[in-house]
Amino acid sequence: MQNSDIEVKCEEVKKIEVKMQAILDNLTKPRGSLGKLEDFCIKLAAIQGKAPPEIHKKGVYVFGGDHGIAQEGVSLYPQEVSFQMAMNMLLGGAGINALANAMNWEVNVVDSGIMVDFPPDEELKKQGAANRLIRAKVGKGTRNFYTESAMTEDELEAALQKGQELADDAVSCGYSMVAIGDLGIGNTSTAAALLIAAGLNADAVIDRGTGIDDKALISKRRIIKEACIRRRPVANPLAIMQELGGYDLAMMSGFILGLDGKGIACILDGFPVTSAAYMAFMQNKKIIDYVFAGHLSKVAGHKVVLDKMGLSPIIALDLHLGEGTGAVIGGYMVELAVNCARNMASFDTADVSGKDVEEKKY
Amino acid sequence: MQNSDIEVKCEEVKKIEVKMQAILDNLTKPRGSLGKLEDFCIKLAAIQGKAPPEIHKKGVYVFGGDHGIAQEGVSLYPQEVSFQMAMNMLLGGAGINALANAMNWEVNVVDSGIMVDFPPDEELKKQGAANRLIRAKVGKGTRNFYTESAMTEDELEAALQKGQELADDAVSCGYSMVAIGDLGIGNTSTAAALLIAAGLNADAVIDRGTGIDDKALISKRRIIKEACIRRRPVANPLAIMQELGGYDLAMMSGFILGLDGKGIACILDGFPVTSAAYMAFMQNKKIIDYVFAGHLSKVAGHKVVLDKMGLSPIIALDLHLGEGTGAVIGGYMVELAVNCARNMASFDTADVSGKDVEEKKY
Repeated sequence: MQNSDIEVKCEEVKKIEVKMQAILDNLTKPRGSLGKLEDFCIKLAAIQGKAPPEIHKKGVYVFGGDHGIAQEGVSLYPQEVSFQMAMNMLLGGAGINALANAMNWEVNVVDSGIMVDFPPDEELKKQGAANRLIRAKVGKGTRNFYTESAMTEDELEAALQKGQELADDAVSCGYSMVAIGDLGIGNTSTAAALLIAAGLNADAVIDRGTGIDDKALISKRRIIKEACIRRRPVANPLAIMQELGGYDLAMMSGFILGLDGKGIACILDGFPVTSAAYMAFMQNKKIIDYVFAGHLSKVAGHKVVLDKMGLSPIIALDLHLGEGTGAVIGGYMVELAVNCARNMASFDTADVSGKDVEEKKY
Repeated sequence: MQNSDIEVKCEEVKKIEVKMQAILDNLTKPRGSLGKLEDFCIKLAAIQGKAPPEIHKKGVYVFGGDHGIAQEGVSLYPQEVSFQMAMNMLLGGAGINALANAMNWEVNVVDSGIMVDFPPDEELKKQGAANRLIRAKVGKGTRNFYTESAMTEDELEAALQKGQELADDAVSCGYSMVAIGDLGIGNTSTAAALLIAAGLNADAVIDRGTGIDDKALISKRRIIKEACIRRRPVANPLAIMQELGGYDLAMMSGFILGLDGKGIACILDGFPVTSAAYMAFMQNKKIIDYVFAGHLSKVAGHKVVLDKMGLSPIIALDLHLGEGTGAVIGGYMVELAVNCARNMASFDTADVSGKDVEEKKY
């Protein structure tokens, strides 16, 4: 894109934002009184190039992958749990299913690199699978980055490419908004390693994950720090992901980058998803224009990486389940904002005084 | 209630809470990973005496009242706006309508003491009113507490009594959950005065309301502080409300007290509603057992009074619109929690390892 094109684009976005603000100011309420909901409307209007914006279908993509680093005992759960949780999600029994059903999100489970093979679609249907499995397995779990590179260059390329394709899938599905979730034993270790390699403070981003004790945490810290020194990737997001993984996180970053220019809002979940978003952010700062931080999780380091991108989380309910659970709730707040913008009466139509009362900013 | 009865009650509540925790721990997720949603489930289970709890209908009661103090120029809007906004709400055009429709709350507009008379029901229907007006007008606006007592003893009694009756109304309507909203020019001034008279720091609880400027804020502070000295009610919530008002806030406090023992969760909105809840709290600390703080508003002093009751807000989106807008969103988070508890698979039924993995508390 040429500089003059960018300027034209900026001018257009500014126009939409001004139009959206005017619509909000004409609703029957004191100016600014919908707080952050007004900010969400303005951002979404800019993303869609349309004021007021609208939301039709919404989909959450839960990227599942196994992580070789789990062999070092960094997690409380055995690796087979990744597959079991993915199956549970396909059958509709996971946390994300309960939340997604309530708020009308479609659930798409992405096999980016889970160790176990999924049964064929027919068999899944027979078992009662109500949600879509997207078969995008790059490999059966990344290699253990404590002892070797997590993936080959080809595998990284495949993961990124598939992520880009899923951005097209989101368009085909007619989603106005996508949420990103994670699923996979060991993914907080990989996510922390990515951030450390990218220059973030190690102690600030290594967490207990699903709940290891003090002793295991000390060991997890040691292993991840040592591994980062051993792998020592150059400070380039592609090299970092190839050395450390995972198939799931790399695919998320490709997905986020692929959403550029598609007019779709993208809602991040917790620590692993946000770390993947940071890998995308290192490649293209523009992702911030269409990305929302769905929530602040209880996982240490989540706030650190959100701050690095200047994103402020929509809700903070101490969730630390992953799966996109925080993202779908946060995204729903954006939808509520749109509901207000589209369905409230305006001073032009309602018989309410006060259109010309301007709120002083404070 | 005798002491032994209270002990039996406590024992029962404890049993329900333990049962609810066991249900949550058996869901296919790491223990505690639903964060505050788990706390909401446990509190609601205790309120309903049922684990897992369930939510059928939900209703928001928006208490409207006019405040004589508005004559002192403490608000940006003329008093007739209270009536206009109530009409807008009955017709479905207010912020609360957009949010309530999206999340399936019924809207009940309570005329506690708005200055203007509402048209008869038939006329309202003809105009397209889709929401219920509850006619509970105690008087046409309270008196100006800067110059005289806001209400008579009989008026206070009537407001409290009507509030109690509305708690029965909530039962009749079949609500599992009620939200409380406010509507009325000048109500933040009255709310601040109530808290100051109850011993809270004046400068911490007097806010710009709908958005007055610096000069008007200085004047508002002076007027409220002087009025509190002039009225000098004894530190008794009934005396305080009689001296300062308002019909709406007193009725809310009666409503909250009336909900005791009804098995209905009550979700507070912003500063005026929370101040009314504080008047109820002064009379019966037990309200905390069935009250949730729906949100933290942008209004100064809201956090101060929430802290006094030990309530922590569910969401914080900088809303400062009133009408119950923050309460219905916060209440919906409680409903989402119930959705998880009722609709997720358990380790007993799903094929997922990890039931015996206990999360270390941290």
